Parts: sequence; structure tokens; C-alpha cells
Amino acid sequence: MSADWFRRRFLPGGPLPAPRPPRPRASPVPYRRPRFLRGSGSSPGTADASCRPNARPVRSPVRGRALPWNAGYAEIINAEKSEFNEDQAACGKLCIRRFEFGVEEDQEWLTLCPEEFLTGHYWALFDGHGGPAAAILAANTLHSCLRRQLEAVVEGMVAPQPPMHLSGHCIRPSDSQFVEEKGIRAEDLVVGALESAFQECDEVIGRELEASGQVGGCTALVAVTLQGKLYVANAGDSRAILVRRDEVRPLSSEFTPETERQRIQQLAFLYPELLAGEFTRLEFPRRLKGDDLGQKVLFRDHHMSGWSYKCVEQSDLKYPLIHGQGRQARLLGTLAVSRGLGDHQLKVLDTNIQLKPFLLSVPQVTVLDMDQLEPQEEDIVVMATDGLWDVLSNEQVARLVRSFLPGNREDPHRFSELAQMLIHSTQGKDDSPTQEGQVSYDDVSVFVIPLHNQGQGRSSH
Amino acid sequence: MSADWFRRRFLPGGPLPAPRPPRPRASPVPYRRPRFLRGSGSSPGTADASCRPNARPVRSPVRGRALPWNAGYAEIINAEKSEFNEDQAACGKLCIRRFEFGVEEDQEWLTLCPEEFLTGHYWALFDGHGGPAAAILAANTLHSCLRRQLEAVVEGMVAPQPPMHLSGHCIRPSDSQFVEEKGIRAEDLVVGALESAFQECDEVIGRELEASGQVGGCTALVAVTLQGKLYVANAGDSRAILVRRDEVRPLSSEFTPETERQRIQQLAFLYPELLAGEFTRLEFPRRLKGDDLGQKVLFRDHHMSGWSYKCVEQSDLKYPLIHGQGRQARLLGTLAVSRGLGDHQLKVLDTNIQLKPFLLSVPQVTVLDMDQLEPQEEDIVVMATDGLWDVLSNEQVARLVRSFLPGNREDPHRFSELAQMLIHSTQGKDDSPTQEGQVSYDDVSVFVIPLHNQGQGRSSH
Repeated sequence: MSADWFRRRFLPGGPLPAPRPPRPRASPVPYRRPRFLRGSGSSPGTADASCRPNARPVRSPVRGRALPWNAGYAEIINAEKSEFNEDQAACGKLCIRRFEFGVEEDQEWLTLCPEEFLTGHYWALFDGHGGPAAAILAANTLHSCLRRQLEAVVEGMVAPQPPMHLSGHCIRPSDSQFVEEKGIRAEDLVVGALESAFQECDEVIGRELEASGQVGGCTALVAVTLQGKLYVANAGDSRAILVRRDEVRPLSSEFTPETERQRIQQLAFLYPELLAGEFTRLEFPRRLKGDDLGQKVLFRDHHMSGWSYKCVEQSDLKYPLIHGQGRQARLLGTLAVSRGLGDHQLKVLDTNIQLKPFLLSVPQVTVLDMDQLEPQEEDIVVMATDGLWDVLSNEQVARLVRSFLPGNREDPHRFSELAQMLIHSTQGKDDSPTQEGQVSYDDVSVFVIPLHNQGQGRSSH
Repeated sequence: MSADWFRRRFLPGGPLPAPRPPRPRASPVPYRRPRFLRGSGSSPGTADASCRPNARPVRSPVRGRALPWNAGYAEIINAEKSEFNEDQAACGKLCIRRFEFGVEEDQEWLTLCPEEFLTGHYWALFDGHGGPAAAILAANTLHSCLRRQLEAVVEGMVAPQPPMHLSGHCIRPSDSQFVEEKGIRAEDLVVGALESAFQECDEVIGRELEASGQVGGCTALVAVTLQGKLYVANAGDSRAILVRRDEVRPLSSEFTPETERQRIQQLAFLYPELLAGEFTRLEFPRRLKGDDLGQKVLFRDHHMSGWSYKCVEQSDLKYPLIHGQGRQARLLGTLAVSRGLGDHQLKVLDTNIQLKPFLLSVPQVTVLDMDQLEPQEEDIVVMATDGLWDVLSNEQVARLVRSFLPGNREDPHRFSELAQMLIHSTQGKDDSPTQEGQVSYDDVSVFVIPLHNQGQGRSSH
């Protein structure tokens, strides 16, 4: 992506139609029955949700389906938010092949080694908005993008240290010293591959949606085990946590208009054209009205973590770039997340003001060294879309996990049952023994990933 | 600062002269004898360094001087880096007056209450580069900017919660609810005031340097105690740490081209004109040469935390936007820090490429609740310029502190002696009992701030 492209794409010079008040959410696309999916063999399967025929939540058809490996489980139900469940999930074995480089300096061709060279596991949750189209595309595509990106750097990943030059020739003797000084490790290549895969997938989704006349976007939360490490990549407001006997550790941060306020305001400062004169980039405790004019009110700008006071001018009465609090916070009055995939066509209702320039598709990646962690049998990662975290805190989830697992040691499906139990505890069911009192009206999807023995991937090449 | 201003200022359209290889550091201004300083009464004093007449480090004339309160001590010596010491320091009592607002709605005038309303303490270290001019200006100016910014919001600071409207009338009944939902506290106003004060001081320095035909910049590290809290604001590569009997806690982060790589690369991505076609924004493990062309080499771009490989093109052979490692890392081949004050005129040698658009004057602010901390008698904050931290880790400093203080309980000057001892331990002196083996050739300035009883400021209004 070049700056020219950025400007051509996002800074149109033409006149804009008069805007109307922005809508609260991207409107859903017409109902389309979701495809049901396969997950077997060496390519990840995708799992999605059924449409909801009646008022009570309905479990996904993936329930009870044999997964490619006995490690993760996605429980996806359709609650009361939309006519169709916009959450999608994918999981499976990740098989990285190896390219064999020719030894001749001028040799341009590469031979693809037919055998798997490195294997890992892959879990992904996609929470759609504006319809399920982007989430379905992401569930079908992202693992392929990731495999491709990993195969492009796998030679570097298995070297004692990633070499300066990938092809293994023309190396200066001092190159390894520079790599060492920069502290570049194999895991940095996996982080880079995850970042690139998210961007590549975003481009694919943009092309596919445009070609098929569909719209929408989705958040993406991905966990990958590879070479003894767990990678958690997050773009959006889903969350992954590590739960152990004595520890609860967040493995991701949420990216919303509130958490990314300064980045978003900074872009609006550098490119005020993106707001088309219809929004103010400043943050105020509430939306200002005419009788605030001339008053000194609390505000924050892009460079401020703290608050200050300013004298209200006419331009401060415009609709705020980021407005609302918590779950109600919206970017340009439209979107509740600031990172994710898709949304290439999303505009503020009845205007030409585009959301995409303010969104990032690149995830934040956390790395967990499982060899160092020495996971015990009941150490797990819980991945879930925001519907779960809206009503349960990390600590509440950990309490539910710790009260469930020890009593079900003999149950071979206990991790699946735990995922279901976590979802039920958000649904206000009377028969839920762990009911915490709050009810989620959002889609909820949960993966429970036991970490015990996950480090084995290291020895697979 | 508007975007128009930013573009007018930093995006000139004219042709540029052919650049030469960038210089390693901003060149020093001609020697100018530094002023010695005042520090008494209610306005902070400034402390600076003597010029070095011979090869051995010389202590500042501030040594032994009675400070306005018995709490901090700046030991500033001139080591072997430059002909004059570019470090500057200031400390003193911070006295905030109160504006009295008229009760009539149309009443525009304000009465300045003649008495101090809130008091706190202020310590600041400024590490100059390209000459001491900016550091001297900062030491003379920043505390006034801060006092002005605090006086503008002091009504909000002493309210149970900062009010939506400052002047105390025209408040909607629901306003306090919005302030509460946003979680805005009195300390957020102090953070905002510190952020604004740094920016205001930067503008003053820009005007003063231009008017007097001087150049240069400086880092700024400020500690303020106010209303039972300690605020540490940092823009640059100085550092403050909290040392207690069982705890060492960083109170600041360093801002260098390496730590702010993504922000700097992002700006170069959005505004490639800023590089005038002479630099590449990409990071490589080492500078690329002609025989790297066509090879796949390790690289990072603005959106990447991890690393990947790319095929080297001609444009990748340009000088990197950020080059070098650790202490050698330079922004545009010129500057070792990415935040600070001044540098308005700084250009890459013999080009029109400006450094200022890549620099931030806004600090990162850390807040320490001293009432909650309940500081013991030997709990201190150590503030020091990078010369100290280049040769001593946080843990080494803590060890020196803990070995020194308990044995000197009766010495009324023990905190001053500790500051001196810390500096001596970086100078490779044979008689230093705590010599750790490494020698700093940079300027070194240290404040030692005992926290015991610092919370008393709360009751002063």
C-alpha cells in the first residue's frame, strides 16, 4: 500500500452530498443462508452458525462433530441480536511446506517439497458486522494466507537465527552479527507472517466483496501453536485469556474507537479531509449543544492522554469522530471496532465519508513460550467474541473454568462441555448452575484450547 | 497546531539541493558561557553546569547550595563529551494561584487571587544537544508554562470531580454523569496540563531560538508532586525510577528512534515528501549495499512488530529513516531522540529535510499515588539523564541506593551525597567504593527525591 494509493483511495476531491445523522451500526445485508462447513485433514475447517428459527438460542451444527485434533472446540450459538449469526469460526492443523532453493546463484526456479515440513494448529474467531459475508470469507481464507506467508519464511524460522538473506547465499560474514544485534528471532518471523496474512486476507475480502456486490466486515482473533510457542493475533474486540490454576493472563487487547482514540484522532488531524467538515475530531464528555457555545468545557485532542478545558466554538458542535462510551462507543457514528477485516465500502450513512482509512487490518500479536510455561493438564486458553466478555470478566471466566474442569477429569469431551457451559452462563438460563446473573444479547462464540502437550509441534520437522 | 500549518511548515514544494551523507549528531553551537542559576522563594530555580576547564570532571557550582526545600538535589557534572555541559536542571516550589470567577453570566473579567492556592514541588532535567540553548530556555521556561496551565484548570482540580463546564454555571444536571462515565479525575487535568505545558514551552523555545539566531534541542524529564500524587512527564531518553526496600519501578519510558520506530515510519508512509526521496522508511538489519539488490532480506515496515523478507529494490539502498542500534540509533542520520523540546530549525546536513515533523514535544506522563504508596523514609525517586542509565541498570542503581542510605541515616545531606555517589560511580574513579566497572562519557545529571512526607501537598489549599 503506497501513500499515493492511500490518497487516491481516501481523499476524493469532489463535492460531497449533504450528510444525515450517522446510523448507529452498519446495516445488515439481506439474509443469506450460511454455508455449513467441513474441517478435516490438513486444511483448517470452518465452522459457522445456523440461523435462529425461534426465540431460544440454538446450538451450532458443529456440536459433537469430530475436530481434526482433540484440542479445541468452538461452541457457536445464535442469541438474540440478529436474524442470522454473524460469528464465524475456523480451526485445524496448519501444515507448512518447504521450498527447496537451487544452489546455483542464477537459478531462479524453486521446487516445492511435497511433504509437510512444519506443523502447528490454528484456531480463529470472526465476529461479523453488516452481515456475515466478510466473516465467512475470512473463515475460508485467512488460514491459507497464513500458510502462504509462513511458507515464504520457513527457511528462516528453522535456522538457528533468521539469516539476513533468505536464499542462503551471498551472505556477508558480518550479517549474522547485525541480526543478533537487532535481536531478531524465529518468532519474529511468525509474528510478521501473521501481520502480513491479516493484511493479505483483508485485500482478498475487499476484492471478493466488491466483485459479488456484498458488504460487511468482521473482527479476527487467531491462535496458532508452532515450534513450541502459542501466538495470539487480534484485530477487533474479541479476547483470549490464559487460565491456569493460580494465574489469569490476558493474551490480547481489544481495539475499539475508545482504545485507539489517539491513533484515530491523529489521522484526522493529519488528514482533516477524511471528516469532510462534518465531524469534529475532539473528544468531549458528551455531545455539545448550542448553549455550550462560549463555555469552557472538558476536551481531549490527539496528543493528550489527560484532559483539559477549551472554549467551545461553532465547529466543536459537530458530531464527534468518536462518540459514546463503552459498548456504545462508535467511530464516525457507525462502527464499534477500530481493527478488523473488510468494510472496504463502508461509509457514514448517506455521505461519502469512508470508514476504512481509520481501520487497521493489522493485528497485535502476543507470544507465549509454552516450553517455558510447562503447561499442566488443566491449563487452557479461552478465546471468545465480545458477547462473552460483555457479561463475564476474565476472573469470572477463570472461576467457572476452575469449578468445572477438576470435577470432569474423566470426561473426554470436557473441554467442549466447558465451552458450552461458558456460553450457557451468558444466556440467562435457569438450569445453568454457574449463572452469574447477566445475559448477553450478542452472538457468542468460544474456543477452549488445552495447552498440555501443545508444545509437541516443535519436533515435527 | 492545525494540519494546514503542519503542511505549510513541513511540506515545501520547491526543489531541494542535493544531499550529502547525514552527520551523526546535530553540530554544537559556538561556545556560550552558561548562566548560573537562581533557585529560591516560590519560583523554581534553574541549575546548570560549569564549563570544563580540564580533563577531569568538574562539579557544578550548585553543590552544597541550599535548595528551596529539603527534598531534592541535582548533581550535575561535565564529563568528557563536549566542551560545555549541555545538561540543565531546575527545581523549586510550584505555587498555583486561583482565579475567582464572577457570578454574573455576562461577567467577563476574572480576579486573580493574590494568595497561593495549591502548592507542589517541581524537578526537571533537560539534556541538550546541538548546544545548550534549548536546554537553558527550557530550564527557565517550562515551570512557568506548567504553572499557567495548572492555574487555568485549578478550579476543576479541587472539585470533587472535574466539572464539565469550568466556570461553574450553565451546567446541565446530567453533566456530572458524563464526566463520571468517562472516568475523568483531577489527576487527568494535571496530566493534561503537563502535556500542554511541554507543547507551550516548545513553541516558546522555537520563537526564542529563531529570534536570537540560535539552534539546538533538549530532552525533558519532569517530576511534580501535587495533591498527594507524583507525576513524572518524560519526552526523551532520560529516566526516572522508584526505589523502595523491596521494589524497583520504572516511572518513565525512553523515546528514541528505536522505541518510536512505528510512529516515525507511519508518518513517513503518510507523508513520503518528508523524506525528499533521499531516505527509505524501511528498517533492515544493516544498511543495504549494491550486491544486496534482488536478494530477499529481512525488513520491517510501519505496520509490523515482527519481521519478514522482501526482495531488495533500488530504492531500498537509500539511507534508512532510522539507522543504527542502541545508543548509535539515529533518526534521519542525525538525532538520537524522538521526543523533546526545540530542534525547530534542525535539518539533515546540507539538505532541506527537516527533523521536527518526526519529533514530538508531548511527554508521556506516569502518575504515582503517594497516599496509597505510604512511602517509607528511604523510598526515593532517582531521575537522571541518559549518561547514568548507559552504564547502570535500574537494579544496579537500586543496589547502590540500598547500600548507601541505611548507613547514612544521621547525615542531613545524605540524599545529596547519594546523587553525587551515583554520578561518581559512572566516572571510573578509583576511589569510588561502588564502582561497577563502566564509564560514562556523556553528561550525567541526577536528582534524588525522597518521597517521605511528599504527600503533604494535598492539605495546602
